[in-house]
Amino acid sequence: MKKVIFDTDIGIDDAMALLFLHHAPDVDLIAITTGFGNASVSNTTRNALYMKELFNMSAAVYAGAATPVGSALGEGYADFVHGKNGLGDIPITTPMCEAEAMPAAEAIVELVRANPHALSVVAVGRMTNLAMALALDPELPSLVKELIVMGGVFGYNGHRGNVSPVAEANIAGDPLAADRVFSSGIPTTIVGLDVTAETVMNEAYIDQLRQTAGASGEFIYQISRFYFGFYEKIIGKAECPIHDASAVAYLLRPDLYNTEAAVVRVATEGIAMGQTIHDSTRRVFATDDWRDLPTCNVCVGVDAPAVLAFYLSTLSEL
Amino acid sequence: MKKVIFDTDIGIDDAMALLFLHHAPDVDLIAITTGFGNASVSNTTRNALYMKELFNMSAAVYAGAATPVGSALGEGYADFVHGKNGLGDIPITTPMCEAEAMPAAEAIVELVRANPHALSVVAVGRMTNLAMALALDPELPSLVKELIVMGGVFGYNGHRGNVSPVAEANIAGDPLAADRVFSSGIPTTIVGLDVTAETVMNEAYIDQLRQTAGASGEFIYQISRFYFGFYEKIIGKAECPIHDASAVAYLLRPDLYNTEAAVVRVATEGIAMGQTIHDSTRRVFATDDWRDLPTCNVCVGVDAPAVLAFYLSTLSEL
Repeated sequence: MKKVIFDTDIGIDDAMALLFLHHAPDVDLIAITTGFGNASVSNTTRNALYMKELFNMSAAVYAGAATPVGSALGEGYADFVHGKNGLGDIPITTPMCEAEAMPAAEAIVELVRANPHALSVVAVGRMTNLAMALALDPELPSLVKELIVMGGVFGYNGHRGNVSPVAEANIAGDPLAADRVFSSGIPTTIVGLDVTAETVMNEAYIDQLRQTAGASGEFIYQISRFYFGFYEKIIGKAECPIHDASAVAYLLRPDLYNTEAAVVRVATEGIAMGQTIHDSTRRVFATDDWRDLPTCNVCVGVDAPAVLAFYLSTLSEL
Repeated sequence: MKKVIFDTDIGIDDAMALLFLHHAPDVDLIAITTGFGNASVSNTTRNALYMKELFNMSAAVYAGAATPVGSALGEGYADFVHGKNGLGDIPITTPMCEAEAMPAAEAIVELVRANPHALSVVAVGRMTNLAMALALDPELPSLVKELIVMGGVFGYNGHRGNVSPVAEANIAGDPLAADRVFSSGIPTTIVGLDVTAETVMNEAYIDQLRQTAGASGEFIYQISRFYFGFYEKIIGKAECPIHDASAVAYLLRPDLYNTEAAVVRVATEGIAMGQTIHDSTRRVFATDDWRDLPTCNVCVGVDAPAVLAFYLSTLSEL
């Protein structure tokens, strides 16, 4: 069993990733840590509690960051993508359960300390909670088993940014936090738009989920109405990438991805703000910004049909 | 006949480009404007005068910028690539002719004003002289026939930066100047590493030039000894890209290149300093940095064997 902390700004595709973790037979989801991003942290925490209750999850919920640690690109929440409530504006009843009293960053430190070298962190929102946890405990990099991040874009497979030509939303929402996390030495794999945007579901796929995946399939169908509407507006087709669930797919089936070891930095200012800039060459440049730093695994290729089939079969408990 | 101003920091590959212009039967090279970069502006001006004399060129030489208009990435000159004198440390006699009294930026304005809509500018160094000319005369963009720049890198064909993972030397040497030029509305084509690094000459090619291109071939053979030495050190092979001559190739045979219209900005700060960032999608982002600006033509593909053959046949006056 993989013990997992899911750090998330739930979020339509975050909800799909959470249900992936929930249904995976080899995952022990011990905590959901929340942050701002797709919606305010009060909304994303409410969404976590709502889903915990609805699907009878045992994971504890810890509320996290409301604002970035550094400057961010753009303002407000991504409500034009995820709806005002973060879950595609489906009706949400107030959950009975509550978040833990401990803030997310402290909870991450405590849980990692209690499970040294045994905890996988799947982070699919801003890197804020993790950067704060690193500040609280600089020894985290040697204690976390693995970190899998959905965020960034590196230019593979022709893909570029979604909030600027070079920046992806999760990273652009707190570039300084991401820069600190990627340079920290935590064993990190970054699942960026290079591969998530290759892994696309359409209405027929959602219909199949709805038919075979019970309450989870119905829930995904309901929350994805708003999401498909957004993508239809910007790309003219009712289809969308499986962003956050791709990080879970990597956790469970890393063999479905090709990766490259690279030093990864994040631009924190100017027009490139939020860009993930990697160097896998280790060559000497006119700047030392990439020199002698620990590397991350950057996903550069994906077997997209296999990821889509794996998600469907896991939620359908086949 | 194409009337041409060649703006350059001569430079080994600049010298190759200058000889390309010199031998092209349909080029009327009216001026060489110099700047800092591959060497100091006093060295690059001396190199221009030396080549003017050696090859009996009629073009006037105007000395230009000694320093960038904004912050730059890195320090000093590229003497590890081009030798201390900028021409691979071949022995250079002091030229008898002199540069004009007028500074390069003023000369560019005066020559463009005297030849409205009829002057092609080929710029293969920092964009400093051009940015200063734009400051002197904001109407230049409507008067210059075309500007062809060797600089930048956009990630096509897998190519990335040479002074940082994302920055190319000409642009990184004066990012603010380049940002002003690319946003100015001058009809601009950018010939970046995406295509120049595809267009590679080896020792056999130089040998052929030496055999067929007379004094020019011999000169290129002599200056390229140092250049090949540098490339052998960094890539392990005695071969090198035809960077600056590619801008001349585009001037004369644009059909050998594929281009894409894109708004181009340059990062002027932080770890991305000197990066050319383009957007050809014209989509709405979380930032307005690319919105409603004039586009440049960005070279994304090249028929490299045809460029190499074209250069050889032009210098060999076949």
